[in-house]
Amino acid sequence: VTDLEELRDRMQRFTTERDWERFHDPKSLVLALVGEVGELSELLQWLPADQVVDLANSEPLRSRLGEELADVLLYLLRLADVLNIHLGDAARQKMLRSEERFPADQVRSVAPLKFEPYT
Amino acid sequence: VTDLEELRDRMQRFTTERDWERFHDPKSLVLALVGEVGELSELLQWLPADQVVDLANSEPLRSRLGEELADVLLYLLRLADVLNIHLGDAARQKMLRSEERFPADQVRSVAPLKFEPYT
Amino acid sequence: VTDLEELRDRMQRFTTERDWERFHDPKSLVLALVGEVGELSELLQWLPADQVVDLANSEPLRSRLGEELADVLLYLLRLADVLNIHLGDAARQKMLRSEERFPADQVRSVAPLKFEPYT
Amino acid sequence: VTDLEELRDRMQRFTTERDWERFHDPKSLVLALVGEVGELSELLQWLPADQVVDLANSEPLRSRLGEELADVLLYLLRLADVLNIHLGDAARQKMLRSEERFPADQVRSVAPLKFEPYT
Repeated sequence: VTDLEELRDRMQRFTTERDWERFHDPKSLVLALVGEVGELSELLQWLPADQVVDLANSEPLRSRLGEELADVLLYLLRLADVLNIHLGDAARQKMLRSEERFPADQVRSVAPLKFEPYT
Repeated sequence: VTDLEELRDRMQRFTTERDWERFHDPKSLVLALVGEVGELSELLQWLPADQVVDLANSEPLRSRLGEELADVLLYLLRLADVLNIHLGDAARQKMLRSEERFPADQVRSVAPLKFEPYT
Repeated sequence: VTDLEELRDRMQRFTTERDWERFHDPKSLVLALVGEVGELSELLQWLPADQVVDLANSEPLRSRLGEELADVLLYLLRLADVLNIHLGDAARQKMLRSEERFPADQVRSVAPLKFEPYT
Repeated sequence: VTDLEELRDRMQRFTTERDWERFHDPKSLVLALVGEVGELSELLQWLPADQVVDLANSEPLRSRLGEELADVLLYLLRLADVLNIHLGDAARQKMLRSEERFPADQVRSVAPLKFEPYT
Protein backbone atom coordinates (compact mmCIF):
# COMPACT_ATOMS: atom_id res chain seq x y z
CA VAL A 1 0.00 0.00 0.00
CA THR A 2 1.28 3.47 -0.93
CA ASP A 3 -0.14 6.01 1.49
CA LEU A 4 -0.50 9.29 -0.41
CA GLU A 5 -0.66 11.37 2.77
CA GLU A 6 2.56 9.80 4.03
CA LEU A 7 4.33 10.81 0.79
CA ARG A 8 2.89 14.32 1.08
CA ASP A 9 4.19 14.68 4.63
CA ARG A 10 7.61 13.37 3.66
CA MET A 11 7.83 15.99 0.88
CA GLN A 12 6.77 18.67 3.37
CA ARG A 13 9.45 17.59 5.84
CA PHE A 14 12.04 17.46 3.04
CA THR A 15 11.15 21.03 2.10
CA THR A 16 11.07 22.44 5.62
CA GLU A 17 14.38 20.87 6.63
CA ARG A 18 16.05 22.63 3.69
CA ASP A 19 14.26 25.93 4.26
CA TRP A 20 12.86 25.74 0.73
CA GLU A 21 9.25 26.72 1.57
CA ARG A 22 10.02 30.23 0.32
CA PHE A 23 10.35 28.89 -3.22
CA HIS A 24 7.19 26.82 -3.07
CA ASP A 25 4.47 29.29 -3.91
CA PRO A 26 1.74 27.75 -6.10
CA LYS A 27 2.69 29.39 -9.40
CA SER A 28 6.34 28.32 -9.05
CA LEU A 29 5.25 24.78 -8.20
CA VAL A 30 3.05 24.61 -11.31
CA LEU A 31 6.09 25.66 -13.38
CA ALA A 32 8.13 22.91 -11.69
CA LEU A 33 5.36 20.43 -12.49
CA VAL A 34 5.40 21.59 -16.12
CA GLY A 35 9.15 21.06 -16.20
CA GLU A 36 8.76 17.44 -15.12
CA VAL A 37 5.89 16.78 -17.53
CA GLY A 38 8.19 18.18 -20.23
CA GLU A 39 10.94 15.71 -19.31
CA LEU A 40 8.42 12.89 -19.46
CA SER A 41 7.28 14.05 -22.92
CA GLU A 42 10.85 14.15 -24.20
CA LEU A 43 11.35 10.50 -23.28
CA LEU A 44 8.43 9.44 -25.47
CA GLN A 45 8.18 12.05 -28.23
CA TRP A 46 9.93 10.22 -31.09
CA LEU A 47 8.94 6.66 -30.19
CA PRO A 48 6.41 4.92 -32.50
CA ALA A 49 3.07 5.14 -30.67
CA ASP A 50 2.41 1.42 -30.92
CA GLN A 51 5.81 0.38 -29.53
CA VAL A 52 6.05 2.54 -26.43
CA VAL A 53 4.72 -0.07 -23.99
CA ASP A 54 7.23 -2.65 -25.22
CA LEU A 55 10.17 -0.24 -25.26
CA ALA A 56 9.28 0.94 -21.75
CA ASN A 57 9.84 -2.58 -20.42
CA SER A 58 13.61 -2.27 -21.08
CA GLU A 59 16.31 -0.24 -19.41
CA PRO A 60 17.36 2.53 -19.36
CA LEU A 61 14.00 3.89 -20.53
CA ARG A 62 12.11 2.08 -17.79
CA SER A 63 14.06 3.71 -14.93
CA ARG A 64 14.01 7.12 -16.60
CA LEU A 65 10.22 6.98 -16.97
CA GLY A 66 9.87 5.94 -13.33
CA GLU A 67 11.89 8.96 -12.22
CA GLU A 68 9.88 11.46 -14.25
CA LEU A 69 6.54 9.97 -13.23
CA ALA A 70 7.72 10.19 -9.61
CA ASP A 71 8.79 13.84 -10.03
CA VAL A 72 5.36 14.76 -11.39
CA LEU A 73 3.65 13.03 -8.44
CA LEU A 74 5.91 14.64 -5.83
CA TYR A 75 5.42 18.18 -7.14
CA LEU A 76 1.69 17.56 -7.48
CA LEU A 77 1.52 16.49 -3.82
CA ARG A 78 3.54 19.53 -2.77
CA LEU A 79 1.30 21.86 -4.80
CA ALA A 80 -1.92 20.45 -3.32
CA ASP A 81 -0.34 20.72 0.14
CA VAL A 82 0.52 24.42 -0.13
CA LEU A 83 -2.98 25.05 -1.53
CA ASN A 84 -4.47 23.25 1.53
CA ILE A 85 -6.29 20.84 -0.76
CA HIS A 86 -6.57 17.15 0.18
CA LEU A 87 -5.52 15.45 -3.05
CA GLY A 88 -6.81 12.02 -2.05
CA ASP A 89 -10.29 13.36 -1.25
CA ALA A 90 -10.32 15.39 -4.47
CA ALA A 91 -9.38 12.32 -6.53
CA ARG A 92 -12.07 10.13 -4.95
CA GLN A 93 -14.70 12.81 -5.59
CA LYS A 94 -13.59 13.18 -9.20
CA MET A 95 -13.68 9.42 -9.82
CA LEU A 96 -17.19 9.23 -8.36
CA ARG A 97 -18.40 12.06 -10.57
CA SER A 98 -16.87 10.52 -13.70
CA GLU A 99 -18.40 7.12 -12.90
CA GLU A 100 -21.83 8.77 -12.66
CA ARG A 101 -21.35 11.08 -15.63
CA PHE A 102 -20.25 8.37 -18.06
CA PRO A 103 -22.50 5.33 -17.49
CA ALA A 104 -20.62 2.36 -18.93
CA ASP A 105 -23.56 1.09 -20.99
CA GLN A 106 -24.07 4.48 -22.65
CA VAL A 107 -20.53 5.49 -23.60
CA ARG A 108 -19.18 2.07 -24.56
CA SER A 109 -18.09 2.04 -28.20
CA VAL A 110 -18.86 5.73 -28.45
CA ALA A 111 -16.19 7.74 -30.19
CA PRO A 112 -14.45 9.76 -27.46
CA LEU A 113 -14.09 12.77 -29.75
CA LYS A 114 -17.60 13.86 -28.86
CA PHE A 115 -16.74 14.42 -25.22
CA GLU A 116 -13.83 14.83 -22.89
CA PRO A 117 -13.38 11.46 -21.14
CA TYR A 118 -13.13 11.70 -17.34
CA THR A 119 -13.40 15.45 -17.10
CA VAL B 1 -5.35 7.03 4.29
CA THR B 2 -5.45 7.32 0.49
CA ASP B 3 -4.21 4.10 -1.06
CA LEU B 4 -2.59 4.98 -4.38
CA GLU B 5 -2.87 1.42 -5.72
CA GLU B 6 -6.60 1.38 -4.95
CA LEU B 7 -7.08 4.58 -6.98
CA ARG B 8 -5.01 3.11 -9.81
CA ASP B 9 -7.17 -0.02 -9.90
CA ARG B 10 -10.37 2.02 -9.82
CA MET B 11 -9.18 4.02 -12.85
CA GLN B 12 -8.29 0.78 -14.62
CA ARG B 13 -11.75 -0.67 -13.94
CA PHE B 14 -13.37 2.58 -15.06
CA THR B 15 -11.46 2.39 -18.34
CA THR B 16 -12.08 -1.30 -19.01
CA GLU B 17 -15.81 -1.09 -18.30
CA ARG B 18 -16.11 1.62 -20.97
CA ASP B 19 -13.85 -0.14 -23.46
CA TRP B 20 -11.58 2.89 -23.51
CA GLU B 21 -8.23 1.03 -23.24
CA ARG B 22 -7.81 1.50 -26.99
CA PHE B 23 -7.39 5.27 -26.44
CA HIS B 24 -4.95 4.90 -23.55
CA ASP B 25 -1.62 4.43 -25.26
CA PRO B 26 1.20 6.24 -23.42
CA LYS B 27 1.64 9.17 -25.83
CA SER B 28 -2.10 9.92 -25.80
CA LEU B 29 -2.15 9.77 -22.00
CA VAL B 30 0.76 12.23 -21.78
CA LEU B 31 -1.24 14.60 -24.01
CA ALA B 32 -4.25 14.17 -21.70
CA LEU B 33 -2.01 14.90 -18.70
CA VAL B 34 -0.73 18.04 -20.45
CA GLY B 35 -4.34 19.11 -21.05
CA GLU B 36 -5.11 18.90 -17.34
CA VAL B 37 -1.90 20.68 -16.33
CA GLY B 38 -2.94 23.39 -18.77
CA GLU B 39 -6.33 23.78 -17.09
CA LEU B 40 -4.58 24.03 -13.72
CA SER B 41 -2.27 26.74 -15.11
CA GLU B 42 -5.20 28.74 -16.48
CA LEU B 43 -6.76 28.91 -13.01
CA LEU B 44 -3.66 30.56 -11.55
CA GLN B 45 -2.05 32.44 -14.45
CA TRP B 46 -3.26 35.99 -13.74
CA LEU B 47 -3.42 35.81 -9.95
CA PRO B 48 -0.82 37.82 -8.00
CA ALA B 49 1.83 35.28 -6.92
CA ASP B 50 1.66 36.29 -3.26
CA GLN B 51 -2.13 36.04 -3.01
CA VAL B 52 -2.76 32.62 -4.56
CA VAL B 53 -2.81 30.67 -1.28
CA ASP B 54 -5.39 33.07 0.21
CA LEU B 55 -7.56 33.16 -2.91
CA ALA B 56 -7.47 29.36 -3.15
CA ASN B 57 -9.17 29.14 0.25
CA SER B 58 -12.41 30.54 -1.23
CA GLU B 59 -14.95 29.08 -3.62
CA PRO B 60 -15.30 28.59 -6.52
CA LEU B 61 -11.54 28.57 -7.04
CA ARG B 62 -10.97 26.00 -4.30
CA SER B 63 -13.23 23.36 -5.89
CA ARG B 64 -11.93 24.07 -9.39
CA LEU B 65 -8.34 23.59 -8.23
CA GLY B 66 -9.28 20.33 -6.51
CA GLU B 67 -10.79 19.02 -9.73
CA GLU B 68 -7.78 19.84 -11.87
CA LEU B 69 -5.29 18.48 -9.33
CA ALA B 70 -7.40 15.28 -9.23
CA ASP B 71 -7.43 15.02 -13.04
CA VAL B 72 -3.64 15.29 -13.16
CA LEU B 73 -3.29 12.55 -10.52
CA LEU B 74 -5.77 10.21 -12.22
CA TYR B 75 -4.13 10.46 -15.65
CA LEU B 76 -0.70 10.06 -14.05
CA LEU B 77 -1.84 6.86 -12.34
CA ARG B 78 -3.32 5.59 -15.59
CA LEU B 79 -0.12 6.39 -17.51
CA ALA B 80 2.12 4.60 -15.00
CA ASP B 81 -0.28 1.65 -15.09
CA VAL B 82 -0.15 1.18 -18.87
CA LEU B 83 3.65 1.54 -18.69
CA ASN B 84 3.75 -1.23 -16.03
CA ILE B 85 5.54 1.11 -13.64
CA HIS B 86 4.68 1.07 -9.92
CA LEU B 87 4.23 4.78 -9.20
CA GLY B 88 4.35 4.37 -5.42
CA ASP B 89 7.68 2.51 -5.53
CA ALA B 90 9.10 5.02 -8.00
CA ALA B 91 8.10 7.93 -5.74
CA ARG B 92 9.65 6.38 -2.64
CA GLN B 93 12.90 5.70 -4.51
CA LYS B 94 12.98 9.26 -5.83
CA MET B 95 12.39 10.74 -2.37
CA LEU B 96 15.20 8.62 -0.91
CA ARG B 97 17.60 9.73 -3.64
CA SER B 98 16.71 13.41 -3.17
CA GLU B 99 17.14 13.15 0.60
CA GLU B 100 20.64 11.74 0.08
CA ARG B 101 21.55 14.07 -2.77
CA PHE B 102 20.61 17.26 -0.97
CA PRO B 103 21.84 16.97 2.66
CA ALA B 104 19.82 19.50 4.65
CA ASP B 105 22.86 21.06 6.34
CA GLN B 106 24.58 21.68 3.00
CA VAL B 107 21.80 23.14 0.87
CA ARG B 108 20.02 25.19 3.51
CA SER B 109 20.06 28.88 2.60
CA VAL B 110 21.71 28.05 -0.69
CA ALA B 111 20.15 29.81 -3.66
CA PRO B 112 18.22 27.14 -5.57
CA LEU B 113 19.23 28.63 -8.91
CA LYS B 114 22.49 26.72 -8.75
CA PHE B 115 20.76 23.37 -8.85
CA GLU B 116 17.47 21.72 -9.65
CA PRO B 117 15.79 20.97 -6.30
CA TYR B 118 14.54 17.38 -5.99
CA THR B 119 15.65 16.21 -9.38
CA VAL C 1 4.77 37.44 -45.68
CA THR C 2 4.06 37.31 -41.95
CA ASP C 3 6.30 39.78 -40.14
CA LEU C 4 6.96 38.41 -36.65
CA GLU C 5 7.99 41.79 -35.27
CA GLU C 6 4.75 43.36 -36.52
CA LEU C 7 2.72 40.70 -34.67
CA ARG C 8 4.81 41.27 -31.54
CA ASP C 9 4.15 45.01 -31.66
CA ARG C 10 0.45 44.48 -32.22
CA MET C 11 0.28 42.25 -29.13
CA GLN C 12 2.18 44.88 -27.15
CA ARG C 13 -0.23 47.61 -28.26
CA PHE C 14 -3.20 45.36 -27.45
CA THR C 15 -1.83 44.85 -23.95
CA THR C 16 -0.95 48.47 -23.26
CA GLU C 17 -4.30 49.82 -24.47
CA ARG C 18 -6.06 47.55 -21.94
CA ASP C 19 -3.61 48.30 -19.11
CA TRP C 20 -2.84 44.60 -18.83
CA GLU C 21 0.97 44.89 -18.59
CA ARG C 22 0.67 44.38 -14.86
CA PHE C 23 -0.44 40.78 -15.44
CA HIS C 24 2.28 40.04 -17.97
CA ASP C 25 5.25 39.13 -15.81
CA PRO C 26 7.28 36.25 -17.32
CA LYS C 27 6.16 33.47 -14.95
CA SER C 28 2.48 34.33 -15.51
CA LEU C 29 3.00 34.37 -19.27
CA VAL C 30 4.63 30.93 -19.18
CA LEU C 31 1.56 29.67 -17.30
CA ALA C 32 -0.67 31.23 -19.98
CA LEU C 33 1.44 29.55 -22.67
CA VAL C 34 1.06 26.21 -20.85
CA GLY C 35 -2.69 26.75 -20.78
CA GLU C 36 -2.81 27.15 -24.56
CA VAL C 37 -0.52 24.17 -25.18
CA GLY C 38 -2.91 22.20 -22.96
CA GLU C 39 -5.90 23.21 -25.11
CA LEU C 40 -3.97 22.15 -28.21
CA SER C 41 -3.20 18.77 -26.60
CA GLU C 42 -6.83 18.21 -25.71
CA LEU C 43 -7.84 18.60 -29.35
CA LEU C 44 -5.54 15.77 -30.42
CA GLN C 45 -5.24 13.48 -27.41
CA TRP C 46 -7.72 10.73 -28.36
CA LEU C 47 -7.28 10.85 -32.14
CA PRO C 48 -5.49 7.89 -33.79
CA ALA C 49 -1.93 9.07 -34.43
CA ASP C 50 -1.98 8.12 -38.10
CA GLN C 51 -5.29 9.91 -38.85
CA VAL C 52 -4.64 13.31 -37.29
CA VAL C 53 -3.45 15.02 -40.48
CA ASP C 54 -6.55 13.86 -42.37
CA LEU C 55 -8.97 14.76 -39.58
CA ALA C 56 -7.35 18.20 -39.23
CA ASN C 57 -8.34 19.01 -42.82
CA SER C 58 -12.03 19.10 -41.83
CA GLU C 59 -14.03 21.55 -39.76
CA PRO C 60 -14.54 22.24 -36.92
CA LEU C 61 -11.21 20.70 -35.89
CA ARG C 62 -9.28 22.73 -38.46
CA SER C 63 -10.43 26.11 -37.11
CA ARG C 64 -10.02 25.03 -33.49
CA LEU C 65 -6.44 23.96 -34.13
CA GLY C 66 -5.71 27.26 -35.87
CA GLU C 67 -6.96 29.18 -32.86
CA GLU C 68 -4.87 27.24 -30.35
CA LEU C 69 -1.73 27.39 -32.50
CA ALA C 70 -2.29 31.14 -32.77
CA ASP C 71 -2.72 31.51 -29.01
CA VAL C 72 0.58 29.71 -28.39
CA LEU C 73 2.37 31.99 -30.88
CA LEU C 74 0.87 35.19 -29.46
CA TYR C 75 1.79 34.38 -25.85
CA LEU C 76 5.25 33.28 -26.97
CA LEU C 77 5.78 36.62 -28.73
CA ARG C 78 4.54 38.49 -25.65
CA LEU C 79 6.83 36.48 -23.35
CA ALA C 80 9.93 37.11 -25.49
CA ASP C 81 8.97 40.80 -25.64
CA VAL C 82 8.78 41.29 -21.85
CA LEU C 83 12.08 39.39 -21.53
CA ASN C 84 13.65 41.78 -24.07
CA ILE C 85 14.63 38.85 -26.27
CA HIS C 86 14.37 39.12 -30.07
CA LEU C 87 12.53 35.91 -30.95
CA GLY C 88 13.31 36.12 -34.67
CA ASP C 89 17.06 36.46 -34.06
CA ALA C 90 16.97 33.65 -31.50
CA ALA C 91 15.18 31.34 -33.94
CA ARG C 92 17.63 32.04 -36.78
CA GLN C 93 20.58 31.36 -34.46
CA LYS C 94 19.02 28.12 -33.25
CA MET C 95 18.33 26.92 -36.82
CA LEU C 96 21.93 27.65 -37.81
CA ARG C 97 23.27 25.74 -34.83
CA SER C 98 21.03 22.74 -35.52
CA GLU C 99 22.01 22.70 -39.19
CA GLU C 100 25.68 22.57 -38.17
CA ARG C 101 25.18 20.14 -35.30
CA PHE C 102 23.25 17.56 -37.31
CA PRO C 103 24.95 17.22 -40.73
CA ALA C 104 22.36 15.69 -43.06
CA ASP C 105 24.67 12.98 -44.36
CA GLN C 106 25.55 11.79 -40.85
CA VAL C 107 22.16 11.67 -39.15
CA ARG C 108 20.06 10.46 -42.07
CA SER C 109 18.41 7.12 -41.27
CA VAL C 110 19.82 7.28 -37.75
CA ALA C 111 17.28 6.44 -35.08
CA PRO C 112 16.41 9.72 -33.37
CA LEU C 113 16.25 8.04 -29.96
CA LYS C 114 20.01 8.40 -29.62
CA PHE C 115 19.83 12.19 -29.65
CA GLU C 116 17.46 15.05 -29.23
CA PRO C 117 16.68 16.30 -32.75
CA TYR C 118 17.14 20.06 -33.18
CA THR C 119 18.20 20.79 -29.62
CA VAL D 1 11.93 41.74 -40.49
CA THR D 2 11.51 38.08 -39.50
CA ASP D 3 9.51 36.29 -42.16
CA LEU D 4 7.58 33.50 -40.43
CA GLU D 5 6.99 31.58 -43.67
CA GLU D 6 10.71 31.65 -44.42
CA LEU D 7 11.46 30.09 -41.02
CA ARG D 8 8.76 27.48 -41.60
CA ASP D 9 10.24 26.52 -44.95
CA ARG D 10 13.75 26.33 -43.49
CA MET D 11 12.50 23.93 -40.79
CA GLN D 12 10.76 21.85 -43.46
CA ARG D 13 13.95 21.66 -45.54
CA PHE D 14 15.97 20.80 -42.43
CA THR D 15 13.57 17.93 -41.70
CA THR D 16 13.38 16.59 -45.25
CA GLU D 17 17.14 16.62 -45.75
CA ARG D 18 17.53 14.41 -42.67
CA ASP D 19 14.63 12.12 -43.58
CA TRP D 20 12.98 12.96 -40.25
CA GLU D 21 9.44 13.54 -41.59
CA ARG D 22 8.52 10.08 -40.36
CA PHE D 23 8.91 11.27 -36.74
CA HIS D 24 6.92 14.46 -37.26
CA ASP D 25 3.34 13.33 -36.87
CA PRO D 26 1.23 15.94 -35.02
CA LYS D 27 0.95 14.14 -31.67
CA SER D 28 4.72 13.61 -31.51
CA LEU D 29 5.33 17.25 -32.38
CA VAL D 30 3.00 18.40 -29.59
CA LEU D 31 5.03 16.25 -27.17
CA ALA D 32 8.22 17.87 -28.49
CA LEU D 33 6.65 21.30 -27.99
CA VAL D 34 5.71 20.33 -24.42
CA GLY D 35 9.31 19.27 -23.83
CA GLU D 36 10.59 22.70 -24.84
CA VAL D 37 7.95 24.54 -22.81
CA GLY D 38 9.09 22.39 -19.88
CA GLU D 39 12.71 23.49 -20.35
CA LEU D 40 11.57 27.11 -20.45
CA SER D 41 9.60 26.62 -17.22
CA GLU D 42 12.60 25.09 -15.46
CA LEU D 43 14.69 28.18 -16.20
CA LEU D 44 12.20 30.43 -14.40
CA GLN D 45 10.53 28.23 -11.78
CA TRP D 46 12.47 29.26 -8.65
CA LEU D 47 13.18 32.87 -9.58
CA PRO D 48 11.31 35.56 -7.58
CA ALA D 49 8.46 36.68 -9.85
CA ASP D 50 9.35 40.36 -9.59
CA GLN D 51 13.04 39.87 -10.46
CA VAL D 52 12.77 37.71 -13.57
CA VAL D 53 12.98 40.55 -16.10
CA ASP D 54 16.14 41.91 -14.45
CA LEU D 55 17.79 38.50 -14.10
CA ALA D 56 16.97 37.68 -17.73
CA ASN D 57 19.11 40.63 -18.85
CA SER D 58 22.28 38.83 -17.72
CA GLU D 59 24.10 35.81 -19.07
CA PRO D 60 23.92 32.86 -19.06
CA LEU D 61 20.18 33.03 -18.38
CA ARG D 62 19.59 35.37 -21.32
CA SER D 63 21.03 33.01 -23.93
CA ARG D 64 19.38 29.96 -22.37
CA LEU D 65 15.98 31.67 -22.51
CA GLY D 66 16.56 32.65 -26.14
CA GLU D 67 17.29 29.03 -27.05
CA GLU D 68 14.19 27.64 -25.38
CA LEU D 69 11.92 30.35 -26.81
CA ALA D 70 13.38 29.54 -30.24
CA ASP D 71 12.78 25.81 -29.78
CA VAL D 72 9.13 26.43 -28.93
CA LEU D 73 8.70 28.60 -32.02
CA LEU D 74 10.42 26.15 -34.36
CA TYR D 75 8.35 23.16 -33.21
CA LEU D 76 5.20 25.27 -33.38
CA LEU D 77 5.97 26.21 -37.00
CA ARG D 78 6.68 22.58 -37.83
CA LEU D 79 3.43 21.44 -36.20
CA ALA D 80 1.31 24.00 -38.06
CA ASP D 81 3.07 23.01 -41.28
CA VAL D 82 2.28 19.28 -41.00
CA LEU D 83 -1.31 20.21 -40.10
CA ASN D 84 -1.52 22.36 -43.27
CA ILE D 85 -2.46 25.39 -41.19
CA HIS D 86 -1.05 28.83 -42.04
CA LEU D 87 0.18 30.03 -38.66
CA GLY D 88 0.55 33.66 -39.74
CA ASP D 89 -3.02 33.87 -41.02
CA ALA D 90 -4.33 32.12 -37.89
CA ALA D 91 -2.47 34.59 -35.64
CA ARG D 92 -3.79 37.65 -37.51
CA GLN D 93 -7.35 36.31 -37.31
CA LYS D 94 -6.99 35.62 -33.59
CA MET D 95 -5.60 39.12 -32.89
CA LEU D 96 -8.50 40.69 -34.79
CA ARG D 97 -11.05 38.66 -32.84
CA SER D 98 -9.44 39.55 -29.49
CA GLU D 99 -9.32 43.23 -30.39
CA GLU D 100 -13.06 43.15 -31.13
CA ARG D 101 -13.98 40.94 -28.19
CA PHE D 102 -12.19 43.03 -25.58
CA PRO D 103 -12.86 46.72 -26.34
CA ALA D 104 -10.15 48.69 -24.58
CA ASP D 105 -12.53 51.12 -22.91
CA GLN D 106 -14.63 48.30 -21.43
CA VAL D 107 -12.00 45.95 -20.02
CA ARG D 108 -9.49 48.53 -18.80
CA SER D 109 -9.01 48.25 -15.03
CA VAL D 110 -11.28 45.23 -14.98
CA ALA D 111 -9.92 42.34 -12.95
CA PRO D 112 -8.83 39.71 -15.47
CA LEU D 113 -10.04 36.89 -13.23
CA LYS D 114 -13.56 37.32 -14.61
CA PHE D 115 -12.51 36.34 -18.11
CA GLU D 116 -9.75 34.69 -20.03
CA PRO D 117 -7.72 37.48 -21.63
CA TYR D 118 -7.17 37.01 -25.37
CA THR D 119 -9.00 33.73 -25.69
